[in-house]
Amino acid sequence: MEDFKKLYGEAKEKIDTLLMQVMNGREPASLYQPAGYIMESPGKRIRPVLVMFSAKAVGGSWDDVIHASLAVEMLHNFTLVHDDIMDNADTRRGRQTLHIKYDLSTAILTGDVLLAAAYEYLQRDLKGNAKAVEHFTKGLIEVCEGQSLDKDFEIRGEVSLNEYIEMIGKKTAALSRMCCAVGAILGGGSDAEVEALSNYGYLVGLAFQVQDDLLDITADASALGKPVGGDLLEGKKTFLFFKALEKATGDDLSSLERIITNKGAKPEEISYFKNLYTNLGVLEDARIEVERLTNEALHQLEVLKNPKDIEMFISLANALLNRTK
Amino acid sequence: MEDFKKLYGEAKEKIDTLLMQVMNGREPASLYQPAGYIMESPGKRIRPVLVMFSAKAVGGSWDDVIHASLAVEMLHNFTLVHDDIMDNADTRRGRQTLHIKYDLSTAILTGDVLLAAAYEYLQRDLKGNAKAVEHFTKGLIEVCEGQSLDKDFEIRGEVSLNEYIEMIGKKTAALSRMCCAVGAILGGGSDAEVEALSNYGYLVGLAFQVQDDLLDITADASALGKPVGGDLLEGKKTFLFFKALEKATGDDLSSLERIITNKGAKPEEISYFKNLYTNLGVLEDARIEVERLTNEALHQLEVLKNPKDIEMFISLANALLNRTK
Repeated sequence: MEDFKKLYGEAKEKIDTLLMQVMNGREPASLYQPAGYIMESPGKRIRPVLVMFSAKAVGGSWDDVIHASLAVEMLHNFTLVHDDIMDNADTRRGRQTLHIKYDLSTAILTGDVLLAAAYEYLQRDLKGNAKAVEHFTKGLIEVCEGQSLDKDFEIRGEVSLNEYIEMIGKKTAALSRMCCAVGAILGGGSDAEVEALSNYGYLVGLAFQVQDDLLDITADASALGKPVGGDLLEGKKTFLFFKALEKATGDDLSSLERIITNKGAKPEEISYFKNLYTNLGVLEDARIEVERLTNEALHQLEVLKNPKDIEMFISLANALLNRTK
Repeated sequence: MEDFKKLYGEAKEKIDTLLMQVMNGREPASLYQPAGYIMESPGKRIRPVLVMFSAKAVGGSWDDVIHASLAVEMLHNFTLVHDDIMDNADTRRGRQTLHIKYDLSTAILTGDVLLAAAYEYLQRDLKGNAKAVEHFTKGLIEVCEGQSLDKDFEIRGEVSLNEYIEMIGKKTAALSRMCCAVGAILGGGSDAEVEALSNYGYLVGLAFQVQDDLLDITADASALGKPVGGDLLEGKKTFLFFKALEKATGDDLSSLERIITNKGAKPEEISYFKNLYTNLGVLEDARIEVERLTNEALHQLEVLKNPKDIEMFISLANALLNRTK
């Protein structure tokens, strides 16, 4: 784990340093200054790290994929900028969102140019390997589809757990899958390696999202940086919510359904729902699902040759899933 | 010219037929139905035709670039959807714009997925030729930069004619250049052919825009489908306006400057400005500039081998520039 932390830190520092510069010197400033503001926002840089680790694990180097790594972070930030507009979010990571700091037009256009710049950066690492662009584009399309499904679910009453899993698969897991695929392809991996790492990325992405849903109830408010039960307050449909809907009966079921009708729970109801989730066993269900997905993800690593790389991916999964916020 | 009309018609029909289908059967409908609505909107399809003609002119076939042709039309429509939001436009080509027919979030996301689908379609014609993606991405970035400059100019008082030419170069001409480049590359053209056709596309794009500025004053209202002098009413800075600013003195200069201050002219002032433009000779300047750009564009065609292809590109330029609306 110490080795992992050191390596992750090194990769992140490399990325952070470059992200501070990527938009420098580009004109017009009216476009690239807001783009720089976003790229400099602090973040975990999980996605570029996935690209770098994947390249390394199949015999390539970080340098082989450094632009591709920046590209996936740009793509990720493109989604954040546009999603924040759609969600009417005023802040992100403690900073003003772009459409608040500037205006709607600037935010739309900055998102667009981040995506364009992502393709520009990706190209620099292709060395004629068009397959990486295919995976990149597939990931992008799925992210758009996932966001559209997520918006649908806010409006539609009836949504199933399976549909929810499809949605987070596209909105969250497709991107981490793509990161691993692009890293493995540009690192020179075999088809089997590309597939195994893609699966790893997808499964870890799903596990990450279910864990996120769980933390909304189980984390402390101070670690979370927002009130416990925020998803319930917002009426957000989560893994816990769908599982509870499946299991609850009578008054309990009615109160869950009221969250849909009222588009959210009241603050004074949070402890009732927390108890309900506990009693129905859905917190436990979520923990089991996270573990199942993680185990399946780790199972994919058998294809890798170097035990050291396997260890890094195991530590990465653990770091993502044993977090407290 | 008859041959040209026939050929253009055939290319357009091929594109129109495919555009009716490109978004069919894709899920979720909440995303691809609005995308289909946009792709089915009638249009001249100049950009895909440029791709197809360019491929043909260097020895390739329309079939070699049919997906790339659809891709540039998707990219173009992505810019329209997002620009219409930024411009608060309610209608386009006589149909409701997307953010009016649906809502803001749908319009943003539909634009995004059109761009993503554009890359997906482009890939289908690449056959390992990553250079076409480079040109495609460069065109995309320039379009974003051009749109940003255009927004800047609405706010900034002082803008020069040179800056205006840079802006339309990016916002309009970069895309027609890219269409010719992509077509020529995927059609198997030599570097010299790719460069010459790219230049043709760029110069014709610039000429098209200056002609557009000119038509705002010289066309009749019925052909234009909007009031004559619409650019003046909106305070839009055009080739005519910048030329007039350079040449006018005294009261005439003051009245031009008032358009900037008041963000537009009054309807009763249009005939005064039309006379001013005529007297200052800026309508003539614009005509000369269109002719100069067109001649320079046609000069590029010398590289082509087949006289028939040269004729098609000459007719295309003439059709674009001798239009009445």
